[in-house]
Amino acid sequence: MMVSWVLFPRVLSPANWTCVVEKVKLVTNRYFSRTSAVSVDLSGIFPPIPTPFNEDESIAFDKLASNFQHWEKVPFQGYVVQGSNGEYPLLTTQERVGMVSQVRHLIPSDKLLIAGSACESTRGTIELSNKMAAAGANAVLVVNPSYFKNSMTARALVRHYETVADRSSVPVIIYNMPANTGIDLTADLISQLAPHPNIIGLKDSGGDIAKIARVVSLTRHHKFQVLAGSTGFLLPSLLVGCVGGINGLANILGDEVCTIYNLFTKSKLQEAVELHLRLVTPNATVTRELGVPAMKEAMDMMGLYGGPCRQPLQPLTDSDRQLVRDAFSRNGFLPKC
Amino acid sequence: MMVSWVLFPRVLSPANWTCVVEKVKLVTNRYFSRTSAVSVDLSGIFPPIPTPFNEDESIAFDKLASNFQHWEKVPFQGYVVQGSNGEYPLLTTQERVGMVSQVRHLIPSDKLLIAGSACESTRGTIELSNKMAAAGANAVLVVNPSYFKNSMTARALVRHYETVADRSSVPVIIYNMPANTGIDLTADLISQLAPHPNIIGLKDSGGDIAKIARVVSLTRHHKFQVLAGSTGFLLPSLLVGCVGGINGLANILGDEVCTIYNLFTKSKLQEAVELHLRLVTPNATVTRELGVPAMKEAMDMMGLYGGPCRQPLQPLTDSDRQLVRDAFSRNGFLPKC
Amino acid sequence: MMVSWVLFPRVLSPANWTCVVEKVKLVTNRYFSRTSAVSVDLSGIFPPIPTPFNEDESIAFDKLASNFQHWEKVPFQGYVVQGSNGEYPLLTTQERVGMVSQVRHLIPSDKLLIAGSACESTRGTIELSNKMAAAGANAVLVVNPSYFKNSMTARALVRHYETVADRSSVPVIIYNMPANTGIDLTADLISQLAPHPNIIGLKDSGGDIAKIARVVSLTRHHKFQVLAGSTGFLLPSLLVGCVGGINGLANILGDEVCTIYNLFTKSKLQEAVELHLRLVTPNATVTRELGVPAMKEAMDMMGLYGGPCRQPLQPLTDSDRQLVRDAFSRNGFLPKC
Amino acid sequence: MMVSWVLFPRVLSPANWTCVVEKVKLVTNRYFSRTSAVSVDLSGIFPPIPTPFNEDESIAFDKLASNFQHWEKVPFQGYVVQGSNGEYPLLTTQERVGMVSQVRHLIPSDKLLIAGSACESTRGTIELSNKMAAAGANAVLVVNPSYFKNSMTARALVRHYETVADRSSVPVIIYNMPANTGIDLTADLISQLAPHPNIIGLKDSGGDIAKIARVVSLTRHHKFQVLAGSTGFLLPSLLVGCVGGINGLANILGDEVCTIYNLFTKSKLQEAVELHLRLVTPNATVTRELGVPAMKEAMDMMGLYGGPCRQPLQPLTDSDRQLVRDAFSRNGFLPKC
Repeated sequence: MMVSWVLFPRVLSPANWTCVVEKVKLVTNRYFSRTSAVSVDLSGIFPPIPTPFNEDESIAFDKLASNFQHWEKVPFQGYVVQGSNGEYPLLTTQERVGMVSQVRHLIPSDKLLIAGSACESTRGTIELSNKMAAAGANAVLVVNPSYFKNSMTARALVRHYETVADRSSVPVIIYNMPANTGIDLTADLISQLAPHPNIIGLKDSGGDIAKIARVVSLTRHHKFQVLAGSTGFLLPSLLVGCVGGINGLANILGDEVCTIYNLFTKSKLQEAVELHLRLVTPNATVTRELGVPAMKEAMDMMGLYGGPCRQPLQPLTDSDRQLVRDAFSRNGFLPKC
Repeated sequence: MMVSWVLFPRVLSPANWTCVVEKVKLVTNRYFSRTSAVSVDLSGIFPPIPTPFNEDESIAFDKLASNFQHWEKVPFQGYVVQGSNGEYPLLTTQERVGMVSQVRHLIPSDKLLIAGSACESTRGTIELSNKMAAAGANAVLVVNPSYFKNSMTARALVRHYETVADRSSVPVIIYNMPANTGIDLTADLISQLAPHPNIIGLKDSGGDIAKIARVVSLTRHHKFQVLAGSTGFLLPSLLVGCVGGINGLANILGDEVCTIYNLFTKSKLQEAVELHLRLVTPNATVTRELGVPAMKEAMDMMGLYGGPCRQPLQPLTDSDRQLVRDAFSRNGFLPKC
Repeated sequence: MMVSWVLFPRVLSPANWTCVVEKVKLVTNRYFSRTSAVSVDLSGIFPPIPTPFNEDESIAFDKLASNFQHWEKVPFQGYVVQGSNGEYPLLTTQERVGMVSQVRHLIPSDKLLIAGSACESTRGTIELSNKMAAAGANAVLVVNPSYFKNSMTARALVRHYETVADRSSVPVIIYNMPANTGIDLTADLISQLAPHPNIIGLKDSGGDIAKIARVVSLTRHHKFQVLAGSTGFLLPSLLVGCVGGINGLANILGDEVCTIYNLFTKSKLQEAVELHLRLVTPNATVTRELGVPAMKEAMDMMGLYGGPCRQPLQPLTDSDRQLVRDAFSRNGFLPKC
Repeated sequence: MMVSWVLFPRVLSPANWTCVVEKVKLVTNRYFSRTSAVSVDLSGIFPPIPTPFNEDESIAFDKLASNFQHWEKVPFQGYVVQGSNGEYPLLTTQERVGMVSQVRHLIPSDKLLIAGSACESTRGTIELSNKMAAAGANAVLVVNPSYFKNSMTARALVRHYETVADRSSVPVIIYNMPANTGIDLTADLISQLAPHPNIIGLKDSGGDIAKIARVVSLTRHHKFQVLAGSTGFLLPSLLVGCVGGINGLANILGDEVCTIYNLFTKSKLQEAVELHLRLVTPNATVTRELGVPAMKEAMDMMGLYGGPCRQPLQPLTDSDRQLVRDAFSRNGFLPKC
């Protein structure tokens, strides 16, 4: 595939990071912006925030604002809007963009905002990426298409990501989420994409720490930033060279997840491990095991607004609710009843 | 879950089948229509038509019309628009509805038109089902949500289908497509849904013929119509009690697929088997093995308009194109080169 | 791979079938016998008999004999010893051969006896095949090696089967059992093996009826006999060209399974389908769903000797036992309690 | 399940570790020995040695001896015989025990020797464990049975391991190897087994680092020792609390793998990470990707004896051989050609 890199963001001299995105539409139909790839520093912790709903399944923007009053006290590097925890497949395109706009207004202008812009089609992903950029996203998080599983060869996926990155006005972060997509992007495939100037990193939620290390090893000459997609493997991922994490548990226990990161950067590994071992079970409960409904339930338990999910996601059963409570209380994050 | 069946379509006395859908919004917020469940007869063959694209990926409505000039000579029972072969996940909602409208105008008013209306969210599926009904669909084909795989318990899926069926103005056909969704709806789950008055059948594309027979066995007292989702198991499915098929190969070899059906209904099984054995390899090539791009390639070879797919689906490689040609020519459906 | 077929059984003029196996060791270290490939007629039904155990897990040979008093009244074409239902992986090599000897003495000399001789190693499989042939087996049933999954490429599996078939003194039947092995032998792979003069057929327990038809289609010029590996798809498999079945349910409802076969051969398809639809649920219960312990439980319910399994297979729980009873009684094969 | 712990090894006062195993057969038919559970210290690196074969597939005991001349210069904590790399499923029971005897004579009497004793049956595993103990094994490594996948419920697996541990004269190490068995032992299941006095640890080859941390967290009060089953995740596993590793790569690059361990114990993490990142690609090549044939090929390249595998394992193709060479040479472990 021929891709002309000539006009690409990286060759421009980007000013320092700025949240004022000035887009320019080129004759070639490519967008770029001052939010250049090199200036998006993913080092740190990002919560992939859930979309709060009212009982009638409409978006509860007031609850979103109250949650941010809590989150803004936590030393996050930024936020992810419309990741899997945002129930993005259950929202309309308009709602997805609307959530980005809303969050952009709720957070400081220098805080990074990453938006999940994936659609099944390449053209849809490009269009949504640019809409989200216009709404204030500094980078987009793109999970791979997965419906036509047998057709999602390495060739098709490389082509997809390159085309999206060519046309997106903000940098692209690859999002590998095999538990939901049924496809696990390989280290080889990711390392083919790493040299692209508008692809700046990977969120890996598969948790195969050997693969994560291989990706780090294969891409370390490309300013490619790898993020742990779950608190379950955040600390080991930092050890092997990841720069941060996008961690659902950070919605609930943001200080603790940031503490893992900070202890690591200060080389206080023993303390970090002790905390890690207390987090793995609560984390598993609200991610792999019981998913978004449990995440929201735990937020409710912690005094944040979780609220209901959109259907087909169901409220937890009573016994599952107890599992969530136990996972947090046994590890000292909730009082024991 | 409490569902009041009292006002449901089946208890009305539906007039004969008519494509003029007159919707009435009930106080309960449920829709129903004259297109009642009992009048949708799925006996026969339905091609799940592909969406034709121009080179710039816009929909090629002129090519759609020319394809129908061919298809309308084949004794199909009706058509499926926006099934998997329609690349539905790669279209916008507006395009999905637009395709239904367009096809409704290209076919006789008494020809059945089934539309794929699935979204990941329950509310999205309901809304799209009713839009498609308004655009002329006589029934909707609903593949299960699959992104949040771990949360798609039997409880969640039953609730989803029941809610959609409660609110859809036209009957619902369940669509099981494990190769794409990663979820295989069980015979037990399907038999729980079969009594619902607005759920009229199942398209099963998994091909587990033992399960198909179990579904037939468990639902035979419910006017539940089971359809084979591929020519690869059409004939065996008819044998065990399926009433017809939604078969991608029918786009290409419509007469042959209808012949299988007709030979079966006339108890000419030996002839049917001979034809079946010639169809299984071409069928596998354009479905499981190489997917929609191969389906379109074969249509081009046969003088229909296949054309390109939308990205991320890729054009066939030369060697795959040869595989398609061989699969058809070796079985006598294309001249040998 | 170079294989010299010159000395192979098929080129000999085999006498009529005889159970007296006269082996000749050739200079090339290949064995052959009068039990030539062409004389083993697999048309009909074979129960894959379970190995009966006493409470201390020793083999209960007396119970085996009493079961055969029942089975010998059923019009089986022959028996399979040490298939999956025989719990073969839980027996020693000596016990596996011992069971073959024992069964050979319990059945008429002209009744076909097929023995499961697979080991993970090629050399082990060859050795056991020849021991079982010496003990009276007329053919061997060889499930593919599966422990080193990633190494079981088509190349490795073709080589394995060809080597076993080259050296086995009796004909080889390929056994595809993906639910247990995690590997599904493809139609292409099987069609590569079909021309081998000492490979006479396939038992397919995967139940992918489209693939079964493809195998029939691709191998029909090779006197290759395909057998349905479960009653769940016996009738559809016969329709598409299988010659018979090796069906666990035949241990319990032998007459009914043979009736399916006989009705099919007499073209009484409607009756066959009615019976088929009554058998699919009991069959699923004692095979895929609850496995060998349920098979043995159902045998006990029917007055045969099922008895305990060897560990790690566990006795059914009370609720599972009830499931088994219900599956049979609801379909009229046990009195309702 | 009733298990009487009264006579169990842990209640004895074990002497210091000794390789002289004095077995006592109790009236209850249970064995125990001075090699008590508490005295087997798994801290460190163990290579799971391959079984060397001659061209005719017989065991090459002379080559085994020459390999040990190399290995004995490496600071291993001990050796594993008849793990997956030992091709144990391709050996006879006699050969498996023979390898243990042989290795026992080739290594110092105070060096730990762990033997893979798993069979599909519980009774077979018990018998083989005790034979291997008699031949000099200090502990046994037991992969779970996996042929009857659907029957391998948590209940069955817990029962299996408890029964084996009750009857084994030496301590048991659980071996989780999902890539080969198709079954992934859960953290919950493992934590149920951890309190058993004769179950001393886990080798986890799945590489799910979140699960490994959960196992550590759930079992830390039970003197339960967790080992990383691959170099791909050795360092992260040590970080989260594993005590060592059983690592195929240690056969080839033993010093490097031991250096990872030593740097970790000395808290020189940065150096350890640098080495880790150089090892992950060679490791993947000789384990997950190309398996035992590649492991042996790399041993040949390094001047050890790798030699051929037993069939059905195939020699590498030329291109795969080049992949192996590249993986080692690009990371500085072989001269570049």
